[in-house]
Amino acid sequence: MPAPAKFISYIDAHKDAFIARLGEAVAIPSVSGDPSHRPDVIKMASYIKSLLEPLGVKVELKDVGMEKQPDGTELPLPPVVFGTLGADPKKKTVLLYAHYDVQPALVSDGWNTDPFTLTPDKEGRLFGRGSTDDKGPLIAWINIVEAHVKQGIELPVNIKFCLEGMEESGSEGLDDLIEKEKDGFFKSCDCVCICDNYWMNDRTPCLTYGVRGMSYYRIIVSGPARDLHSGLFGNTVHEPMTDLILLMSKLVTPSGEIMIPGLDKLVAPLTDAEKKRYETIDFALSDIEEQVGAKIVLSDDKPRVLMGRMRNPSLSLHGIEGAFYGPGAKTVIPAKVQGKFSIRLVPNMTPENVDPLVIKYLSDEFAKLKTKSTLKIENIHGGKAWVADPDHWNFRAAIKATEEVYKKKPDLTREGGSIPVTLTFADVLGLNVLLLPMGRGDDGAHSTNEKLDTYNYIEGTKLLGTYLYEVAVTN
Amino acid sequence: MPAPAKFISYIDAHKDAFIARLGEAVAIPSVSGDPSHRPDVIKMASYIKSLLEPLGVKVELKDVGMEKQPDGTELPLPPVVFGTLGADPKKKTVLLYAHYDVQPALVSDGWNTDPFTLTPDKEGRLFGRGSTDDKGPLIAWINIVEAHVKQGIELPVNIKFCLEGMEESGSEGLDDLIEKEKDGFFKSCDCVCICDNYWMNDRTPCLTYGVRGMSYYRIIVSGPARDLHSGLFGNTVHEPMTDLILLMSKLVTPSGEIMIPGLDKLVAPLTDAEKKRYETIDFALSDIEEQVGAKIVLSDDKPRVLMGRMRNPSLSLHGIEGAFYGPGAKTVIPAKVQGKFSIRLVPNMTPENVDPLVIKYLSDEFAKLKTKSTLKIENIHGGKAWVADPDHWNFRAAIKATEEVYKKKPDLTREGGSIPVTLTFADVLGLNVLLLPMGRGDDGAHSTNEKLDTYNYIEGTKLLGTYLYEVAVTN
Ligand SMILES: [Zn+2]
Ligand SMILES: [Zn+2]
Ligand SMILES: [Zn+2]
Ligand SMILES: [Zn+2]
Repeated sequence: MPAPAKFISYIDAHKDAFIARLGEAVAIPSVSGDPSHRPDVIKMASYIKSLLEPLGVKVELKDVGMEKQPDGTELPLPPVVFGTLGADPKKKTVLLYAHYDVQPALVSDGWNTDPFTLTPDKEGRLFGRGSTDDKGPLIAWINIVEAHVKQGIELPVNIKFCLEGMEESGSEGLDDLIEKEKDGFFKSCDCVCICDNYWMNDRTPCLTYGVRGMSYYRIIVSGPARDLHSGLFGNTVHEPMTDLILLMSKLVTPSGEIMIPGLDKLVAPLTDAEKKRYETIDFALSDIEEQVGAKIVLSDDKPRVLMGRMRNPSLSLHGIEGAFYGPGAKTVIPAKVQGKFSIRLVPNMTPENVDPLVIKYLSDEFAKLKTKSTLKIENIHGGKAWVADPDHWNFRAAIKATEEVYKKKPDLTREGGSIPVTLTFADVLGLNVLLLPMGRGDDGAHSTNEKLDTYNYIEGTKLLGTYLYEVAVTN
Repeated sequence: MPAPAKFISYIDAHKDAFIARLGEAVAIPSVSGDPSHRPDVIKMASYIKSLLEPLGVKVELKDVGMEKQPDGTELPLPPVVFGTLGADPKKKTVLLYAHYDVQPALVSDGWNTDPFTLTPDKEGRLFGRGSTDDKGPLIAWINIVEAHVKQGIELPVNIKFCLEGMEESGSEGLDDLIEKEKDGFFKSCDCVCICDNYWMNDRTPCLTYGVRGMSYYRIIVSGPARDLHSGLFGNTVHEPMTDLILLMSKLVTPSGEIMIPGLDKLVAPLTDAEKKRYETIDFALSDIEEQVGAKIVLSDDKPRVLMGRMRNPSLSLHGIEGAFYGPGAKTVIPAKVQGKFSIRLVPNMTPENVDPLVIKYLSDEFAKLKTKSTLKIENIHGGKAWVADPDHWNFRAAIKATEEVYKKKPDLTREGGSIPVTLTFADVLGLNVLLLPMGRGDDGAHSTNEKLDTYNYIEGTKLLGTYLYEVAVTN
């Protein structure tokens, strides 16, 4: 069931007003990672409430407690905004998630415009922090409700909003709240739609049905009681850095293969249906080269590269804590160094089945070094991978909506990074979760000069609205 | 010729006054590495002048120009203090070097007492920044001159002082000044004595006849145009950290052997006479374990360990610039990383014959990685090794003086670290340079709670004075 023409034409007719509304949202610097901006994050919650309530949405600002600061003081966490619109038992109830906080942004980071003033260019790109991540999508949902309420159109589904203000800072408090409200606020939900990721390029819409998990490790190698001078002690004692670098060199090859025995056996086998998806996804290796700004893709084989990103694990070496990291030359033998690396997990890898393999392998390799340094390996944090069933009615509805709005079949993709709340919704609520992106791969979320194309904002608003109609009738 | 009894008894009689004078020197926080303390460094030069001039020493404060700061501004360099006492053509002229600047020190670093208040404990240890490095030795020379002048004893040699205020910060300006004054102030010098290092333990005096040189390298590996998110790009692109860690793992084994082919052939062969010295040096492996606070020596073979420190090269991995170095977990794929390592050079290694071997080896190993990252290798800075002839009259005089004062034969040692001015005196002036230490191996120069034992200060003052008498008559 396509959305009514009145809805589509309202969106087109109110383009300027919707851009102005996004501008109001961007103007509130709701940077969750900066304590000095915490009042702005909280102000953003009130701003959303002030938009939703006049539209008849029942809004609750859910207090999720305090955040402990490194200096010992406490800051109030911004509330999770719960919204309820409709409770018709004959309709499906769709849970919509978005976040209203943003990444930090300073003009001095290299922005061409003030990051907190939404600034359009001639091509209709709307520059500003949060434009695409995630205020554009959030405001789009509000625009959709407005289009219905103002024109007296009945919404095809009941809506539950769950809008958080700490997504960019670890989603503190959210998991507990979902667990607590599982049989309360969330009880009636039938499916979840999250609009907080991106197309893989600037051409083709996609739906995302999986994200990788992660296990983040540190290898701690210790030797002397304090840092030593390499002139006095070089070639005299075992040096922790030598041992650590050797261990870290045994983790992954330059072509990306993980060297830890047994990990490959944990990876779910590739089905023919899944393999076909990677062959047909509209994504060229040159898209990756453009995104990273260099010709450094691991292979000329497109499915190999896409599977490396979406359905195979990866291991990255992030850095070393405790060693010399400044510019210039310091002749130190560091006493205690911590090598940091992480493994992106895919089905059926879990921290529980991966950790023992990692720890055993590194301990065995360390023993071969015959060093007098000491070793400790820790999993600092991580999370499971998430994969949804892309044949679920939630996805089929989104595919149909995409075809109606963009006249194009969306690619079915899996993402490399983690969105932890996805997993919580799937596991705790037991619902199918759809990631339905609005922005493009080159939007620069988390980067300088973040933008959202007016085209994606307006057509994306139509897409999200149309999705509600399709989800109402797809089974 | 032992020193006259009147000299020795004056030193003993004035112990308290000499400690008080060292206290005055320590109270001036002449930290050369901290721009805000630059006036104190310059004040220290005036303080030295005010002590030397009344004793008849002709003092010149040699301006060595300005120091460029990282922010573009300029700071005046502290002057090099030139002092001349005696010009008797029948006497030898001894060049005495010391430095009057010190390392930084804050109580918050872990000092038990105020670092700039010389504080004795019950065992006669004098705690304070610069007590052993290098204000103790510097004030000792002044005490020696005073003992002669006040008692009307004629000095057995002519003395030239060269006292600098930038030793802890790269000795800026000194090399140029020595080159310039080679046929001026330094023309008449016959030998050099530097009192700026330490016994190897807390028991046995030593003379030092060699120090290792150094070549400090950075390996720069670059890939993407900017840092990437490991979730999005892990197992998709070549990662510079993977390549760098693999390269760094090919440099040195856990037991300290350098893996760069050809370097071992540059090391001067071991003579029987030299080998014997390592066997007889009063130094136990437990001394090293005590110094580093852990049982991590590379071998149970004492000569192997001593040679590793004194006469063989070493390679230490110092750290990585550009990677994640903080606490916690950051899921970054760094775009450009710089691995820092240095090689301590021994005769007959030089930066000129070592650099090509290092660069060729690393380039060859990098090619084997088959990565699309790019590589650059740079020698950031370095200096040659220095070895003096320990059979020269300068050393024989110091050996005799040590036996007279300490009733013990000094060990003949070589040091692991570099003292660049040693090489300049040897190369530019063509003189034999003796390193005649005052303090003990556990004094903690550059560390918290730096100290000088009263015993070493007073007996060391006698030693330096006696050395002048022995050097006058040894040929
Ligand atoms: Zn987001
Ligand atoms: Zn984000
Ligand atoms: Zn020194
Ligand atoms: Zn020093």
